[in-house]
Amino acid sequence: MDKIYVIKIGGNIIDNDEKLSSFLDTFVSIKENKILVHGGGKLATRMAEQLKIPQQMVNGRRVTDAETLKITTMVYAGSVNKNIVALLQQRGCNAIGLTGADANLITSQKRINREIDFGFVGDVEKVDGIMIKKLIEAGLTPVIAPITHNGKGQLLNTNADTIAGETGKSLVSDYQLSLIYCFEKKGVLRNVDDDESLIKCINPGSFLELKKNNIISEGMLPKLENALAAVDAGVERVVIGRAEDLSSLINGTSGTTINHE
Amino acid sequence: MDKIYVIKIGGNIIDNDEKLSSFLDTFVSIKENKILVHGGGKLATRMAEQLKIPQQMVNGRRVTDAETLKITTMVYAGSVNKNIVALLQQRGCNAIGLTGADANLITSQKRINREIDFGFVGDVEKVDGIMIKKLIEAGLTPVIAPITHNGKGQLLNTNADTIAGETGKSLVSDYQLSLIYCFEKKGVLRNVDDDESLIKCINPGSFLELKKNNIISEGMLPKLENALAAVDAGVERVVIGRAEDLSSLINGTSGTTINHE
Repeated sequence: MDKIYVIKIGGNIIDNDEKLSSFLDTFVSIKENKILVHGGGKLATRMAEQLKIPQQMVNGRRVTDAETLKITTMVYAGSVNKNIVALLQQRGCNAIGLTGADANLITSQKRINREIDFGFVGDVEKVDGIMIKKLIEAGLTPVIAPITHNGKGQLLNTNADTIAGETGKSLVSDYQLSLIYCFEKKGVLRNVDDDESLIKCINPGSFLELKKNNIISEGMLPKLENALAAVDAGVERVVIGRAEDLSSLINGTSGTTINHE
Repeated sequence: MDKIYVIKIGGNIIDNDEKLSSFLDTFVSIKENKILVHGGGKLATRMAEQLKIPQQMVNGRRVTDAETLKITTMVYAGSVNKNIVALLQQRGCNAIGLTGADANLITSQKRINREIDFGFVGDVEKVDGIMIKKLIEAGLTPVIAPITHNGKGQLLNTNADTIAGETGKSLVSDYQLSLIYCFEKKGVLRNVDDDESLIKCINPGSFLELKKNNIISEGMLPKLENALAAVDAGVERVVIGRAEDLSSLINGTSGTTINHE
């Protein structure tokens, strides 16, 4: 089976021209198939400030009213996505920018939550791995923005980590798949303030142990649970680490690797 | 050869939910291959007002500084494009939203003008008709936003009429192509204030006659010159008329038809 990398980057890279440029240089140097999934929350927050649309975050998730959905769609699918696509084209990588609505790639359902109304936020229902494969086989590199749709004409703001995970899962029957989450830290740390306390490997057994002993921070728990679910669904490995270390995340010499072993 | 329709709509439709909805109903009812090209200038102007970025228009063209490019990219490629794609998906049409940067579809050059610096405005260089055909053959309906790129990492704001025309021309060796421009009027009028003064047919000979006698309004001249150039390049016919009349524009019973005959 061919290899494929699904790589997710967040605001700390997108928002920094120099870091983004260097990240994309490494990204295009990957010879195997690849998909880029991006967030852009920081830029959406800034645009909301400029437009004086108050933003509300609950447990790190953005409450998305109609005005905020418009902002996230503009920022994620418009400026961030197309800027990255143009920079990849400059580097000779035939990128295609997509939301979940495009080619009906990712359908989702509006989140139902009795306590908090998150508004136009979508929980992923289905990713069309067959269509993604078609695009890849046409020589294209998908760049996915965290906007999906419900099939009834409604766009929905959707968590980019989840999109990366579900996109990965949709491709496991066709590719040997690595899922790479880039964030600010070197990987999963025993002590969040100590970069040297990196946990290099996590498997289902050691995860339970780490969780029991409260070693994993609250913010990291859902990321790891998603990673283990992806591994369970056939993703070969999930690597969590810094975007700056992309090359070594890929060859497994930096970051935290989550797999079955 | 298979038929294909390249249809361009502007702000007067995009900006009106009811008209857009009705237009898209007719659009999806077209059984042949189709491509939608959209503008969105009115919405970009409104967003610029909200963000207090002054806009300058010269001869109907937007002077595009860096901030304005960001706005047009957000509005055209983000909110307008993805909203239309979601509405087409709702109607069972497998739309894919694209700019010229996506899949390297449309490259352009930054406009050089000694008198006026239009800023980040692109003149179309090349449309990749082969890639568009691949997408169509994958079962997709392209929805194109008027943003292109120069291959060097720079997005460029580009006239949607020109994109429709150049996209049409890139497909003439593979399809029997009709190019349909929707705007506010019933078509080309002898008297702009009289909807009944429609000129039903224009060919190269009658165009010269109309031009010589100053019957064609200044705003309509470049549209018609583009239309005749498209016909000259192998487009079967160009039809100009109201979006509300799409069905009859297609079957040739309304609007102005420009062809060789």
